Amino acid sequence: IAVSLLTVCALPVALAAPVKDSDWPMPAKDYANTRFSRLNQITTGNVKQLQLAWTFSTGLATGHEAAPLVVGDTMYVVTPYPNYLYALDLKSGGRLKWTYKPEPARAAQGVACCDVVNRGAAYADGKIVFNALDNHTVAVDAETGKEIWKTKLGDINLGQTMTMAPLIVKDKVIVGNSGGEMGVRGWVTALNLKDGSKAWQAFSTGPDKDVLIGADFKPYYESDRGKDLGVKTWPPDKWQIGGGTVWGWISYDPTTNLIFYGTANPGPWNPDLRPGDNKWTSSVFARDADTGMAKWAVQYNPHDLHDYDGVNEHILVDLTIQGKPRKVMLHPDRNGFLYVLDRTTGEIISANPFVYTTSIQKVDLKTGHPIVAPGKEPHTGIRVNDICPAAPGGKDWQPSAFSPQTGLLYIPHNHLCMDVTSTEVGYIAGTPYVGMEVSMKKGPGDYGGVFSAWNPATGKEVWAIKEHYPAWSGALVTAGDVVFYGTMDRWFKAVDAKTGKELWKFQAGSGVIGQPITFQGPDGKQYIAVLSGVGGWAGAVVSGHLDTRIPYGALGFVNAMKDLPNDTTPGGMLYVFALPGNTP
Amino acid sequence: IAVSLLTVCALPVALAAPVKDSDWPMPAKDYANTRFSRLNQITTGNVKQLQLAWTFSTGLATGHEAAPLVVGDTMYVVTPYPNYLYALDLKSGGRLKWTYKPEPARAAQGVACCDVVNRGAAYADGKIVFNALDNHTVAVDAETGKEIWKTKLGDINLGQTMTMAPLIVKDKVIVGNSGGEMGVRGWVTALNLKDGSKAWQAFSTGPDKDVLIGADFKPYYESDRGKDLGVKTWPPDKWQIGGGTVWGWISYDPTTNLIFYGTANPGPWNPDLRPGDNKWTSSVFARDADTGMAKWAVQYNPHDLHDYDGVNEHILVDLTIQGKPRKVMLHPDRNGFLYVLDRTTGEIISANPFVYTTSIQKVDLKTGHPIVAPGKEPHTGIRVNDICPAAPGGKDWQPSAFSPQTGLLYIPHNHLCMDVTSTEVGYIAGTPYVGMEVSMKKGPGDYGGVFSAWNPATGKEVWAIKEHYPAWSGALVTAGDVVFYGTMDRWFKAVDAKTGKELWKFQAGSGVIGQPITFQGPDGKQYIAVLSGVGGWAGAVVSGHLDTRIPYGALGFVNAMKDLPNDTTPGGMLYVFALPGNTP
Ligand SMILES: O=C(O)c1cc(C(=O)O)c2c(n1)C(=O)C(=O)c1cc(C(=O)O)[nH]c1-2
Ligand SMILES: O=C(O)c1cc(C(=O)O)c2c(n1)C(=O)C(=O)c1cc(C(=O)O)[nH]c1-2
Repeated sequence: IAVSLLTVCALPVALAAPVKDSDWPMPAKDYANTRFSRLNQITTGNVKQLQLAWTFSTGLATGHEAAPLVVGDTMYVVTPYPNYLYALDLKSGGRLKWTYKPEPARAAQGVACCDVVNRGAAYADGKIVFNALDNHTVAVDAETGKEIWKTKLGDINLGQTMTMAPLIVKDKVIVGNSGGEMGVRGWVTALNLKDGSKAWQAFSTGPDKDVLIGADFKPYYESDRGKDLGVKTWPPDKWQIGGGTVWGWISYDPTTNLIFYGTANPGPWNPDLRPGDNKWTSSVFARDADTGMAKWAVQYNPHDLHDYDGVNEHILVDLTIQGKPRKVMLHPDRNGFLYVLDRTTGEIISANPFVYTTSIQKVDLKTGHPIVAPGKEPHTGIRVNDICPAAPGGKDWQPSAFSPQTGLLYIPHNHLCMDVTSTEVGYIAGTPYVGMEVSMKKGPGDYGGVFSAWNPATGKEVWAIKEHYPAWSGALVTAGDVVFYGTMDRWFKAVDAKTGKELWKFQAGSGVIGQPITFQGPDGKQYIAVLSGVGGWAGAVVSGHLDTRIPYGALGFVNAMKDLPNDTTPGGMLYVFALPGNTP
Repeated sequence: IAVSLLTVCALPVALAAPVKDSDWPMPAKDYANTRFSRLNQITTGNVKQLQLAWTFSTGLATGHEAAPLVVGDTMYVVTPYPNYLYALDLKSGGRLKWTYKPEPARAAQGVACCDVVNRGAAYADGKIVFNALDNHTVAVDAETGKEIWKTKLGDINLGQTMTMAPLIVKDKVIVGNSGGEMGVRGWVTALNLKDGSKAWQAFSTGPDKDVLIGADFKPYYESDRGKDLGVKTWPPDKWQIGGGTVWGWISYDPTTNLIFYGTANPGPWNPDLRPGDNKWTSSVFARDADTGMAKWAVQYNPHDLHDYDGVNEHILVDLTIQGKPRKVMLHPDRNGFLYVLDRTTGEIISANPFVYTTSIQKVDLKTGHPIVAPGKEPHTGIRVNDICPAAPGGKDWQPSAFSPQTGLLYIPHNHLCMDVTSTEVGYIAGTPYVGMEVSMKKGPGDYGGVFSAWNPATGKEVWAIKEHYPAWSGALVTAGDVVFYGTMDRWFKAVDAKTGKELWKFQAGSGVIGQPITFQGPDGKQYIAVLSGVGGWAGAVVSGHLDTRIPYGALGFVNAMKDLPNDTTPGGMLYVFALPGNTP
């Protein structure tokens, strides 16, 4: 099916319990992960008048990636380690209502791969639920700030951490782990919202019974079929320390009761140390939300060569393709290709590059597999240059937004290449298990990022804004046809959703890598909120005070970000903006 | 001379090199320490439209007390420890030009008494000069950020630190030390601006030759006359560890070439351990700026009982008193009395209480001495209750502003009382040397601070705004008749200079204890800038994460600030505000 035959008739998937327009109860706004808001007081016409309403400091100097939540009159902000949860009163300009402190183990900071970030909390049923870096999922009473339950899910001594935002589906909280760079075995776990007890757990590697693969499992592609592939596609026992963590985004389709999420890269990075497909790393799973049983899976990057985790967002949209309505999902993968998949079957309908790429020539729609470009395959002791995208991918964790009004996907992404040398490495529990010397650099043209609009109907980019650094923040799009995103050099920007024209920008205190949100305050006004505070993997050179003379710092990211300390300091701050004047 | 006979004809003292209205080259704006700006675009009429232009994060979670400086197109901000100096480009919304890092010894943090604050830098002759916490004064090229010189002046192993802002007078940089609570011997030192070499040093205690007292010394009061009083008014040798540090403000009168500054309390706090007047602690000195030789001195609080340092600002104003023009200075002392002194002689013209006070009945104008109220004298082993003002005084370091337009002094101050028990204490170098168990509380009416306007012509308060916490920020007053100050519960406020009416307020990210300034940008617009970031002695409960159940924490301040963690988080951020629209 040619991508150009898709017609522009895109609808985000309906929600089980529709989210109020005024609220923002989960980082992606809705189960479909659109980050689209129907609020339209702020428009392309008046956004230039946007001004700061109030601010709130977290007092932390590490990467602030979280989305604030809004439920009724209260905003909730979860910080990087030590993962404080703040409740702020929207009725009085953000006064502090209460603070909840999970007090995670200090040593968790030492095993987190990519700064000590947290991507946000989720609200349901009077509870705020989030993950602390030391592998505890906690539920806090949204009204009082009192802890309701706290469940330990992993072990920092094995290099495990948690940074992702839970997704709450009906009576279950779905969470995943981090630690792919430490030989951690990935999993996704459902906890009962009521008491935090474990409902089910699905590993990404190992025998089918651990992966929750049963009779219902119907993968679309030949190579994804077979028994215990999570064992057989690995050298003996290596699946036990093989990565495939689940630190990204989860979506949910209430009509089929399926959740969708990607798994991270296999460990170690050096592919010579793990012959085979390394299932189910760098894959996407569709699972029954109640039982966790897999419905289908696709391995985006079998035997991943370049740290191309599959954890990026899957945005659920209903499209009309060749006159036929289809339930699809959009997935800008780390490998630089934008996948449109049939979310009922796992069929890849199309996969087009959305960034500059040298490492993968194309995705073969018959097998579902990417074709690696000649000469871009790392082998032990050999230096391979100019692999693009670099390890953080065409796009890393930073989530896109989709507007059903424009039919466009708004993608914050990277423009990075890398030179690598694979090295030997042995596994020692709780220590880095990588086996690759990496040095990244900005892509051709000497810029590091792009913010672009993508038309899934044509498989083409509509407009693009070059950024000097990777566009490491989330995206937000509103019914006012305004798109918001932040840059690592301290700008928070509003652009026209149709044209990409810059409409407004604000110089924040630190680089902006948070997820912007919008909500309607108790006064009836539309507000925009975002956290600034540079860090994350890309910003570790600043938040971790790394030596810019050592290119291999932060797994090679420092070399591409040597100039970042000239442009930003660290420091966490919440900014809340509104138009001037009173209730509209 | 009755205070009520002063006529309202107040002029701030002229400057040697007049400061440009557009600049803000030293924390107090001018040598007279007025913190008054002739800029008048922002008025009582339009200040309510003030909005945020840009922000800049320091990434530090300790107390931010510094005043930003503005020289031409550049703003300079010095942070708390590790005392980074940032140069921000005013031509491009505060982009970072360069960062200078003095890299102070880490251990300095452990001996600083009251958080790891810094009160700002000073500009002269192409150089930015400031003090690092570990007793280094540094001069940095204002253009390039390169270090020009760095002079070591003290020893952290003896409990010495530096937190004050230098004053640059002609070719000399004048600085003083901190550490009164560690048995440090106070001094003020002049360095040559050119190369940082020592020009002169005057100790606060010890023999006349160390105190730079010579034939020229003409004190106004009888009790301040005599040889080597800095030795004789102490038990043997105790002057060597007797405090009298110089961590506050210095003023300069170019017409007489005199500098004025106060010395801190004597050590230890327990007065039974140091019988005598303890000269020259809690005093004010007038010294020749070139030689450092003392011209006169007044001891505000002989044998200080309550930690009433004398370091608060001396604001130089020319007043007409009984028809006679007089060169005076205004000094709101920690003991709660507002002194008007003749700055040519040291005569106390008047001294009236500007806060609620129980500890001192009045100041005897014949002797210059305060009369301590019966029963408010601490003695070893005895508990004395309800001493008001408490140890941080009627006013601590937070500097007032004086408007020659309104003739009023704007005083951010405290409303605190304390209960104390004196204890035995021995001196161990580099450790606390206090001998007092203190527990503070908010004053009558259960509020902790006041921001008030004082008329030196009548010796009376004109208006007062109660604040829940001590008003721990500096004050700023402009020719638009707007007064700015910050509160520890996150408000930055603009009030009418004549009436005290609140005109505008902004909810900052953290409590505001910085010194607000104003300047004219390269675009011709008037801006207001202030650092937020709670801390200092009053805010240590938040910035130091102190246990609120222990009243004696932070030398007893915690007990008065138990509720502060409910109202603010820490976190340093620079806010720059302007009116909407383009160049006026
Ligand atoms: O494999 C993993 O478990 C894992 C975890 C994380 C994380 O939890 O933040 C990142 C990554 N991988 C990763 O590959 C990556 O690029 C990355 C970027 C960031 C970030 O927050 O900036 N985290 C992570
Ligand atoms: O005696 C001294 O050397 C000394 C130093 C300092 C300082 O350097 O900050 C303070 C004090 N004393 C002091 O008494 C005091 O109230 C105080 C408050 C603060 C502050 O920044 O909040 N510093 C200091």
